[in-house]
Amino acid sequence: MFRNDYSEICAPEVLEKLKNCLGEQNIGYGLDVHSAAAAEKILDAFGLSDSGAEVFFLAGGTQANAVTLSFLMRPYEAVICCGTGHINVHETGAVEGSGHKVLTSPGKDGKLLPEEIERIYRLHTDEHMVKPKMVYISDSTETGTVYKKAELEAIKKTCEKLGLLLFIDGARLGVALTSPENDMTPADFAANCDVFYVGGTKNGAMYGEAIVVKDPSLSKEFRYHIKNRGAMLAKGFAVGIQFEALFTDGLYFKLAENSNATAAFIREGLEKLGVETGGGAKTNQIFISVPAPLGLKLEKEFGLELWTDNGDTRVERIVTSFAAKIGDCETLINYIGNNL
Amino acid sequence: MFRNDYSEICAPEVLEKLKNCLGEQNIGYGLDVHSAAAAEKILDAFGLSDSGAEVFFLAGGTQANAVTLSFLMRPYEAVICCGTGHINVHETGAVEGSGHKVLTSPGKDGKLLPEEIERIYRLHTDEHMVKPKMVYISDSTETGTVYKKAELEAIKKTCEKLGLLLFIDGARLGVALTSPENDMTPADFAANCDVFYVGGTKNGAMYGEAIVVKDPSLSKEFRYHIKNRGAMLAKGFAVGIQFEALFTDGLYFKLAENSNATAAFIREGLEKLGVETGGGAKTNQIFISVPAPLGLKLEKEFGLELWTDNGDTRVERIVTSFAAKIGDCETLINYIGNNL
Amino acid sequence: MFRNDYSEICAPEVLEKLKNCLGEQNIGYGLDVHSAAAAEKILDAFGLSDSGAEVFFLAGGTQANAVTLSFLMRPYEAVICCGTGHINVHETGAVEGSGHKVLTSPGKDGKLLPEEIERIYRLHTDEHMVKPKMVYISDSTETGTVYKKAELEAIKKTCEKLGLLLFIDGARLGVALTSPENDMTPADFAANCDVFYVGGTKNGAMYGEAIVVKDPSLSKEFRYHIKNRGAMLAKGFAVGIQFEALFTDGLYFKLAENSNATAAFIREGLEKLGVETGGGAKTNQIFISVPAPLGLKLEKEFGLELWTDNGDTRVERIVTSFAAKIGDCETLINYIGNNL
Amino acid sequence: MFRNDYSEICAPEVLEKLKNCLGEQNIGYGLDVHSAAAAEKILDAFGLSDSGAEVFFLAGGTQANAVTLSFLMRPYEAVICCGTGHINVHETGAVEGSGHKVLTSPGKDGKLLPEEIERIYRLHTDEHMVKPKMVYISDSTETGTVYKKAELEAIKKTCEKLGLLLFIDGARLGVALTSPENDMTPADFAANCDVFYVGGTKNGAMYGEAIVVKDPSLSKEFRYHIKNRGAMLAKGFAVGIQFEALFTDGLYFKLAENSNATAAFIREGLEKLGVETGGGAKTNQIFISVPAPLGLKLEKEFGLELWTDNGDTRVERIVTSFAAKIGDCETLINYIGNNL
Repeated sequence: MFRNDYSEICAPEVLEKLKNCLGEQNIGYGLDVHSAAAAEKILDAFGLSDSGAEVFFLAGGTQANAVTLSFLMRPYEAVICCGTGHINVHETGAVEGSGHKVLTSPGKDGKLLPEEIERIYRLHTDEHMVKPKMVYISDSTETGTVYKKAELEAIKKTCEKLGLLLFIDGARLGVALTSPENDMTPADFAANCDVFYVGGTKNGAMYGEAIVVKDPSLSKEFRYHIKNRGAMLAKGFAVGIQFEALFTDGLYFKLAENSNATAAFIREGLEKLGVETGGGAKTNQIFISVPAPLGLKLEKEFGLELWTDNGDTRVERIVTSFAAKIGDCETLINYIGNNL
Repeated sequence: MFRNDYSEICAPEVLEKLKNCLGEQNIGYGLDVHSAAAAEKILDAFGLSDSGAEVFFLAGGTQANAVTLSFLMRPYEAVICCGTGHINVHETGAVEGSGHKVLTSPGKDGKLLPEEIERIYRLHTDEHMVKPKMVYISDSTETGTVYKKAELEAIKKTCEKLGLLLFIDGARLGVALTSPENDMTPADFAANCDVFYVGGTKNGAMYGEAIVVKDPSLSKEFRYHIKNRGAMLAKGFAVGIQFEALFTDGLYFKLAENSNATAAFIREGLEKLGVETGGGAKTNQIFISVPAPLGLKLEKEFGLELWTDNGDTRVERIVTSFAAKIGDCETLINYIGNNL
Repeated sequence: MFRNDYSEICAPEVLEKLKNCLGEQNIGYGLDVHSAAAAEKILDAFGLSDSGAEVFFLAGGTQANAVTLSFLMRPYEAVICCGTGHINVHETGAVEGSGHKVLTSPGKDGKLLPEEIERIYRLHTDEHMVKPKMVYISDSTETGTVYKKAELEAIKKTCEKLGLLLFIDGARLGVALTSPENDMTPADFAANCDVFYVGGTKNGAMYGEAIVVKDPSLSKEFRYHIKNRGAMLAKGFAVGIQFEALFTDGLYFKLAENSNATAAFIREGLEKLGVETGGGAKTNQIFISVPAPLGLKLEKEFGLELWTDNGDTRVERIVTSFAAKIGDCETLINYIGNNL
Repeated sequence: MFRNDYSEICAPEVLEKLKNCLGEQNIGYGLDVHSAAAAEKILDAFGLSDSGAEVFFLAGGTQANAVTLSFLMRPYEAVICCGTGHINVHETGAVEGSGHKVLTSPGKDGKLLPEEIERIYRLHTDEHMVKPKMVYISDSTETGTVYKKAELEAIKKTCEKLGLLLFIDGARLGVALTSPENDMTPADFAANCDVFYVGGTKNGAMYGEAIVVKDPSLSKEFRYHIKNRGAMLAKGFAVGIQFEALFTDGLYFKLAENSNATAAFIREGLEKLGVETGGGAKTNQIFISVPAPLGLKLEKEFGLELWTDNGDTRVERIVTSFAAKIGDCETLINYIGNNL
């Protein structure tokens, strides 16, 4: 299956680490030593050691988005994002469910443009309209693209100018920062936003996302809010342990590299076959345009998700994961080659 | 440590089962075969096979309470519970955070009385007051007591008479149904409520609660609500796998029996020493009244949670878990004996 | 001033009626005889007598929209409207504030198209997306246009096909139904929606909107919801009295006719001067495109609201009201003529 | 009828003032000259001129409570009040509907005690419980009692010590401050709270409550919140005009004096007849204990509201208003005398 990057339980190293801790007793709610150690490792990886930044572990991505955004906004404040943004399309209105409007811009290649942020901001002039307060982007984006350093810097600068907070959804941060298209270090990335999360679920963890809030004045009482939203895990240490494993010896980025490498392998193979692979995006999502009958077969045989139904042709999404193997990629390529 | 029943990662059998599934690929969001198999096993254990009842897996207890209650109520409807109820005291207002008032009654021994439900219901006569719609109880209760079959039947009957839905928080359902004080089969239990959840986190799972909604007309579109509240797990199968393990060969109840047995051992030992253990409750929580200096030592050495500070004396809570060992219980008893 | 249609307290007949009732005592919360009489008059005017339809009086338009929509939707359900829709732009996120996503379509001339409703509906296929449940339109629209009977019937039919409820914001319903462009009777209008409100504030009342819910099964317990949202008026009878006055001897529609007639007078006068008046719309809003310096003067002298700033030219909005006088219209036309 | 103090439209002076303004045009949303003038008069009456305090006009009491409290609290914060408090019992969960828990204390004579505030505050020690942030009291209280200056000062001092904001519901502030039991000037009153509202609806206005926020740093962006909650009145000036009338020549307090004087007349008359009138309370609410048959008659003939049904006897509530006349009071007293 190349359906998505959350089809496997977790990386073996993660389970091994959990097993090693089986006999332990830890205090609850994320106040344990593993969560503390994991937080330190994450901050270190993103150049934020001793910066005052804080890390909070939640179970999943939609939760991380809705809980964090609703914490950082007053009821009448709104978040700006791409029309394709996960919070706008694929979270069943979780952000609105917590009371906030999502303001959208079409964006370009799944990426938000600084001038669009400013245009939307300037449309909202008084108390009869929501007050833009946050900007939401994801890296990699919904369509698998990645932000260049200059692009991110420009967005951050615009946010600063307008008094907006920049939140980055890092559900797929691993593949973004290890993509051949990426030109940022993790520290560069972290330097150019206010809050972000490091996605575990889609990169080797069983569950868990690590929210990083750089300015400690922003995260005051966040734990109250997390609990109020039903998002505080009793066994927080079990997520801490997983992130400890992921951020030991660079495992997190190694796993992402496998996702990217196998995707690159497939992309290359398919391009040789003349299959349209949507070009630029160099992370673990490939959007291929194929004849409808082949599309249907791929959905059935490899679990591909239909992205767009254009009648005679279908755009299908291939996603590789930390666990993808070159052999399976070859099988997929061959299958497509034989059925074109 | 005897701090609580969620200090250990999970039962070894649960981790083993996860490990056995490491190589698998499963579809996401709880639509996988493991979740389906676990649901069937749970329904079977509670005498609900082929009844139309449905099972939904969430990550934690506060989440299970708030997401389910807010799904089953209109905005102006309210839930009746004990003043000591978990939703009333220990969930940072999660139920109110989802818009609903919690109406309380003092209760008796942590248990809600049918006549109190009716009294509160009858106080709410028109649209200037909230409309009682649900009753929330937990089994075992916050103070470790269990409902007798006749008590639960009486509550259910009152609810039916008044048109109220009965929700049972089963975060500690295992120890309730295996307590020497319990006189219900799991099927008896399930027959006397509308919605309940089977707690995993406090009885051997790493995370996960299984919400059982008996009437399928009540659970229609519940998955939309779960996602809207940020509570849908991408890797739902990882919870399904855990519950598969827990409901194979009666593991769930065996683990609970260990909690109860070790608690009974401690209770007996302490009573021999003349320590007041709060009497009746026969599940895995023991509330002991000790001199303040000993209380402080126990908090430090065994992680006990202070329940009530009465100045010279302190009520401390001892909690045993699925992983508790008789040897450790002896250590605790001896320590107390030596420091009285 | 031609700033808007809520600059004057109320129609003299409305205040007279209030004065006549000064000595009376009435029971509170809208359960009085005046509210009942007003409801009957309104239902009669819209061909809904003895239909089971119910009327609820609220204070204002944003409140009427948010309270009604949040009552008719479950938390994960959404409302479809034009991008220009009042709920989408000018209500500070009140609908999202009550938890619901607003799904938008560009629309045409401020009007929503049936095919767009269906397209948006079909995009929402599973529980990872909100569930479209309502359609919101306004008549007259934000840009002063009115729905033709055939257009409204087509929307209603689409809603019925898709199981959507059609809600019509009638803040400016008076000018819509008395517009020369209108081809519906009030009964035709009411026949083609599920819920609508008859705007008082913008058509002669001091405050008050009358929400009409046609199907009584939909309005069950609505009074609880109204109170829960802080929208139940203690002196509901004071709104009832106003609507009694408005729906006696056709006053409501006479007031709207004055708005339309004075707007038509201005439109004609300006077109003679060669001023662009935006064409088709034949209600009480006129959008004129004038040189920027003139625009600024008009904002200052006549309170016009700037609609679009195109640099050299500005689109300014002229709004007439129930109280507008031909003499003042002439003054405005002459002023513009002298300053072009 | 002596059912309540909101049975009459408004004081004649208020309607007269509205009539005098009929021909005017005013800008919308409370930004008009009347609202500004009314705000100044109110601030002056409460000794807050030039203090930076701001006034916001809303339509009704439940709305004033819910909108203000939800503005001043973060989602996980809670408000402490008496169990009998209006927000706790008679607002259909509006405060919880905006996401906040109401923490209650039994109180004494409808009044909250400082030591109870502190006790409740100290029970809430960590993020598993809500965070107390506000204290809500009303003056006069639900049972018609009034706070003494020393009582209010003690509460304010406790709030300051604990970092809590004190909000006073002044729906019946007029009768409180003109009660023979009152020992505060309006300025004393205002000095001892953070936010309060001056009730119009129950003291001579047609609708409208004036919220006073003393610290301007607290009211920043409050207008956004008001609009977001659907509580901003398009014709804000119509409320401004009413409060201008009420705060000209002390009308507001004169109207309240009539309520108190007529209530005192009734109280005295009934006590002579040997009817129990509940003693101390000296505002416009009288709670009489009468034989059940007489109670039923009074409900029917004078619209009295049943407060408590004790079987053989019934506690009935008599409420006088700004419009009550001594002659009608005599009728009531005689009726009771003749039917005892």
